[in-house]
Amino acid sequence: MTRKRQIKLSAYLVGTGMHASSWRLAQASPGASIDIDYYRELAVTAERGCFDMVFLADSLAINERSHPNILNRFEPLTLIAALAGATSRIGLVATASTSYTEPFNLARQLLSVDRISRGRAGWNIVTTRDLSGSTARNFGAESHYELEHRYRRGEEFVDVVRGLWDSWEDDAFVFEKETGRFFDPGKLHRLQHRGDFFAVEGPLNIARSEQGYPLLVQAGNSDAGQQLSARVAEVVFAIKFNEEDAKAYYDEFKRKVASYGRNPDDVYILQGISPVIGATEEEAQAKKRQLEALLSDETILGFLADYFKEIDFSRFTPHTTASDAGLDTLQSANPDYKKHQPVIARENPTLREVYSLIIGSFSGDHLVGTPEKIADTLERWFHGGAADGFMLMAPALPEGLDDFVNLVVPLLQERGLFRQSYEGSTLREHFGLPVPLSRYTRIVN
Amino acid sequence: MTRKRQIKLSAYLVGTGMHASSWRLAQASPGASIDIDYYRELAVTAERGCFDMVFLADSLAINERSHPNILNRFEPLTLIAALAGATSRIGLVATASTSYTEPFNLARQLLSVDRISRGRAGWNIVTTRDLSGSTARNFGAESHYELEHRYRRGEEFVDVVRGLWDSWEDDAFVFEKETGRFFDPGKLHRLQHRGDFFAVEGPLNIARSEQGYPLLVQAGNSDAGQQLSARVAEVVFAIKFNEEDAKAYYDEFKRKVASYGRNPDDVYILQGISPVIGATEEEAQAKKRQLEALLSDETILGFLADYFKEIDFSRFTPHTTASDAGLDTLQSANPDYKKHQPVIARENPTLREVYSLIIGSFSGDHLVGTPEKIADTLERWFHGGAADGFMLMAPALPEGLDDFVNLVVPLLQERGLFRQSYEGSTLREHFGLPVPLSRYTRIVN
Repeated sequence: MTRKRQIKLSAYLVGTGMHASSWRLAQASPGASIDIDYYRELAVTAERGCFDMVFLADSLAINERSHPNILNRFEPLTLIAALAGATSRIGLVATASTSYTEPFNLARQLLSVDRISRGRAGWNIVTTRDLSGSTARNFGAESHYELEHRYRRGEEFVDVVRGLWDSWEDDAFVFEKETGRFFDPGKLHRLQHRGDFFAVEGPLNIARSEQGYPLLVQAGNSDAGQQLSARVAEVVFAIKFNEEDAKAYYDEFKRKVASYGRNPDDVYILQGISPVIGATEEEAQAKKRQLEALLSDETILGFLADYFKEIDFSRFTPHTTASDAGLDTLQSANPDYKKHQPVIARENPTLREVYSLIIGSFSGDHLVGTPEKIADTLERWFHGGAADGFMLMAPALPEGLDDFVNLVVPLLQERGLFRQSYEGSTLREHFGLPVPLSRYTRIVN
Repeated sequence: MTRKRQIKLSAYLVGTGMHASSWRLAQASPGASIDIDYYRELAVTAERGCFDMVFLADSLAINERSHPNILNRFEPLTLIAALAGATSRIGLVATASTSYTEPFNLARQLLSVDRISRGRAGWNIVTTRDLSGSTARNFGAESHYELEHRYRRGEEFVDVVRGLWDSWEDDAFVFEKETGRFFDPGKLHRLQHRGDFFAVEGPLNIARSEQGYPLLVQAGNSDAGQQLSARVAEVVFAIKFNEEDAKAYYDEFKRKVASYGRNPDDVYILQGISPVIGATEEEAQAKKRQLEALLSDETILGFLADYFKEIDFSRFTPHTTASDAGLDTLQSANPDYKKHQPVIARENPTLREVYSLIIGSFSGDHLVGTPEKIADTLERWFHGGAADGFMLMAPALPEGLDDFVNLVVPLLQERGLFRQSYEGSTLREHFGLPVPLSRYTRIVN
């Protein structure tokens, strides 16, 4: 029997929401990003909506112009450990950097939250972008690693972590009370890794979980990032402006996965979406306008001045178009811009839209409207080969998640596009992925 | 009004208990060290007993001869984040090393669990002993740092962490929705630290908690360790063989605290105890004998051979005395032995007892018996100036904690020596300690 593939859903949890002015809404709790009860409620809501997972992004440096929701917030690994107790089914994915941690510590904390959640943890692998060098300066370095160095380190880091996760075979612990034999020493393995960046002996002092080890999630956009994703990631997170770009990315990425000898169906592509949901199209448009009206010109232009160091934005307003500001042809020093430039050159958005696009809170017309319209868009993208699922980056929380769970999820369920209830209890089970074999498993005929 | 000072109690949580054979008891769950529900229940029991805190020790390397309860266990910071949701009052103290982490990451995770628990976190500061170099080999180093280097790094590390914790003043967040002013930039501070070991700019991306920041706990025994404790620790954890040694340590340590210009009453000394509780003296003695009978000669002699590399233990049995094995006069290469040698030279215990003493599961006669006898011992030590409180290192869990909470705590309460219920809600409040002032607080007359 072949099972029909269904849409996968992840909720991106970030304080009052993705939109930089969401904290200013009348109903918003500006202290949300540091309120554990608030986060527990978000996770419970997402679980009520049968979401596959919640997702916690991260950054390792802030400054006076940072998004309000990241100035003062929980650290993701400790946060998902806390959310594990408030939920029982939903996956819990935390971002952690390969550039500023030790693989032994991170392998251990990740597997620890995987055990705490009984097989529901995921690791969003990042190498950490650091345009201004401010992250490096929090870790004793004068300047940030170059992208290529970062990804070489990241590749080796991931291999060390996966190696440490296999330290104990699944049947290593025999617990023979009569003889005093606690474990079988033949099933305890030392990694003995020696590479360009790390020397790690092992073994790790924690054994694999109900799902083997945490689900591997990645969102790399550079060539180096996509290579890492294609080689190791099980869930990939991207943000595309429209269906055409999403499809092109989807096709290209799945080909890359295949080029690593992996089955493209074993890697799920989640497209980031920031829907604005209203009872009517007009109500949704009004909600979007309200959020944008609360976004000050200063925030937009200050952010863009930080992002594009080569341009003097004091001459522009948020209504200036990308081409008038010279963004369409710009050779930016910012490597992040490479992924945005083609669409900006093609669509010629205003600077306000450029800002939303870059910070990931862009709500295109296909995502502003009634629950039916949103469901239609998701169905079209899913069936059209643009996405295996979606990362809900709600402009305003908690209502953006509440509305989606209460109004959009039932439509997807009615259409047979989304689960009615959880069938499995681990995160890998939600994605239909098997428990990864340990490298020490002996295949017996 | 002067409040009578009461006994402080901490529960040391470790799988099936401190005793290396505790997992072999008929009622033991050998997989306890990795069972989150089991840990939640331990924490709930300790909270029912009005304990000030639970305590999670740690290590960063294992080998085939490690204590069964540490081979496969949770990482402490993620574990206390999970325990925060199962409890509401008790303090949660995690061990983390200054030798193998980055101060920015650790400052952040500690403050994150402090916020998650609403002001109930503590940090047991360790520099990590590493006799065999196996920890260093998990972190890319060929050999471990020397003790003196470790403590110099540790001192600077703690100062950086405390500095980062003050990044945001308590009233920095103004949340003015009308004007769009989220915080007052004058109340955000960059540490700009440059020292011998670390260069850390800041600011930290999380603000102080309900109790300011995590309680600082330490258990250093070397001179360098005691200096760090005396300078910064708020709770100190020691293990002494008998009342006389405990008193001598207590007096000397409080003098050291005073030498740093601190009030000795602001630092609490918890003495580690491994009581064996029985309805009668005979029942308790039988319980102790049962545990010891399950401890194999091989475990004892194998551990000692690892610990004292200079001695060939194959010639001895666990009944050999310390003097017959030459331990009383040994110049050991193991720096840890310095703290045990005086008492071993004086008491001339058997090798079995030496083993228990070193791993911290020694139950002296004063701690084996009826609940009344245990309570009498604790009262005598407390009133005699040997302890401000106790770290319950139960030989067998969960019963060692259950029995203590059900049978010993009520006696201490009847005698007015221990609280009947929690008065505060933060860990610092349990210890009667004020919220630490931020270094940026302006004193206004």
